[in-house]
Amino acid sequence: MLNPADLLTSFDPETGVIDGALRSERCLSDLRGIFHDADAYAAALADGDPLVYYTYAVEPADGPGDLYYAIGTILPGRIGDEYYMTKGHLHTWRPAAEFYIGLRGSGLMLLEDEATGESHLVPLEPNGAVYVPGSTAHRTINTGDEPLTYLGIYPARAGHDYAAIAERGFSTIVTCVDGRPVARRV
Amino acid sequence: MLNPADLLTSFDPETGVIDGALRSERCLSDLRGIFHDADAYAAALADGDPLVYYTYAVEPADGPGDLYYAIGTILPGRIGDEYYMTKGHLHTWRPAAEFYIGLRGSGLMLLEDEATGESHLVPLEPNGAVYVPGSTAHRTINTGDEPLTYLGIYPARAGHDYAAIAERGFSTIVTCVDGRPVARRV
Repeated sequence: MLNPADLLTSFDPETGVIDGALRSERCLSDLRGIFHDADAYAAALADGDPLVYYTYAVEPADGPGDLYYAIGTILPGRIGDEYYMTKGHLHTWRPAAEFYIGLRGSGLMLLEDEATGESHLVPLEPNGAVYVPGSTAHRTINTGDEPLTYLGIYPARAGHDYAAIAERGFSTIVTCVDGRPVARRV
Repeated sequence: MLNPADLLTSFDPETGVIDGALRSERCLSDLRGIFHDADAYAAALADGDPLVYYTYAVEPADGPGDLYYAIGTILPGRIGDEYYMTKGHLHTWRPAAEFYIGLRGSGLMLLEDEATGESHLVPLEPNGAVYVPGSTAHRTINTGDEPLTYLGIYPARAGHDYAAIAERGFSTIVTCVDGRPVARRV
């Protein structure tokens, strides 16, 4: 059995902070190449290096049936007409699925099947659970005016593969048109 | 990729209902043998067969890396001095862990290591996540005056083994003493 102190964690759905968990941050400079408007990216970067999102992760144990959970918070903002979003990733162990649960704000999850390229945009909001099947690239996009906070649970052995995404990108972008999110194939 | 309609589910944290998911119910008659006060159990059963808890489960896919989620709701109540609670189970695939997240009400999770018998009671409340390691029998107990609603996420291949619990029981019971939960070894 684990140490009793490791069996319970508490989180704040407003701030996305998990007490005692390790925080990771992604600033704009960490997201080179993911926004479609290179000029807007360069201008925003020249104007500072804003924090775009941060995560807290809890990793209690790493056996074959263990699970991890993490909470991500994407700040509101845009680069040109494109909303702040995560880098996106596949799981290194491709069969690994993930459940996302919205805690605050409103956004979208972009899911793209690695084999077929088929993609879907699924709303991510409080009291909703989004299922990310295995072998599916996934990215989270904050389409609202407040922070988007969500919880993800995944097999401990999933792992994060960012390289495959960096190489081929996603086939869909989500931009703000007349104040509303619109998807476009690129 | 799954059907888009299967990628998103919505739940109500107040009622524990997941739209479109299958509901299961456990009435008092389904819980024979789990409460320590046999006379109080018989009297309560003779007085009707109240609903004790219900669950809704979502099972999007069942590959080796897939996940399921379920929401359980235990009504408030007692049999004698013992709080309403679940039967409790181990996972058939023993390495499978589970994350529980409190949505409403207040309760406890009783965790008992199958090999060592070591047990812990961990609070289950909104904005808290309880980790159930593999090979750990777990039972949920409603110690409050309102329904206790919680979400659990677990590997698709976990399975539920109720028989092992029915045979050996748990070593700890939680009773109401002067209006507060008190744990006792039995």
